[in-house]
Amino acid sequence: MDSKELVYLLKIGIINENLEIYKGLFSDTLPSEIKDPYFIDAISFFNNLPDEHKRIFFSILRQVMIDSISNVLGVIDGSSSLEEHDGDFSLLYEGKSLEYLQDYFLSQFE
Amino acid sequence: MDSKELVYLLKIGIINENLEIYKGLFSDTLPSEIKDPYFIDAISFFNNLPDEHKRIFFSILRQVMIDSISNVLGVIDGSSSLEEHDGDFSLLYEGKSLEYLQDYFLSQFE
Repeated sequence: MDSKELVYLLKIGIINENLEIYKGLFSDTLPSEIKDPYFIDAISFFNNLPDEHKRIFFSILRQVMIDSISNVLGVIDGSSSLEEHDGDFSLLYEGKSLEYLQDYFLSQFE
Repeated sequence: MDSKELVYLLKIGIINENLEIYKGLFSDTLPSEIKDPYFIDAISFFNNLPDEHKRIFFSILRQVMIDSISNVLGVIDGSSSLEEHDGDFSLLYEGKSLEYLQDYFLSQFE
């Protein structure tokens, strides 16, 4: 697997897949089925949205997933740093270095 | 930096920081200032939420960030796999291997 293949798999295996999971969770969960306070609030929030806003809600979740994965890849690439740490990360797949992950990842959404 | 330090920095440097950025963007952006269609929809969506639902909205965004970063760390750890690829990733910081990232990361939110 090279860098481009990895970022493609992150897109389909995390972003696309989680989006389907969220759509199922928000659309199909009955308030009576849940006990977790966060989830009760979240389902009530979703059920109160007009249909057109449900579509926008999921597009926002998708963008938030893109942003957070991009930020992690930026840290791994070394294009962004965490606090005062300026040492180098390297990500290897089967011993082979993967680089420019953030750029390749974001180019899929342009 | 060891694994525990990295996941702490991902929490404060990505999740907490992005949450503040999103709060600022959604709360302080005037519709007249924006041209991007996604963002126009997103701001209109947010401005139509009752105040109590704005709080829930941000808690959902926080959970989505936690989920997606956790998923990436699971791939790096090898605890989840991408399609049919079952080779090993390794993440190094200054040549030193970082492991159990997903578990350490998620334990911060229990």
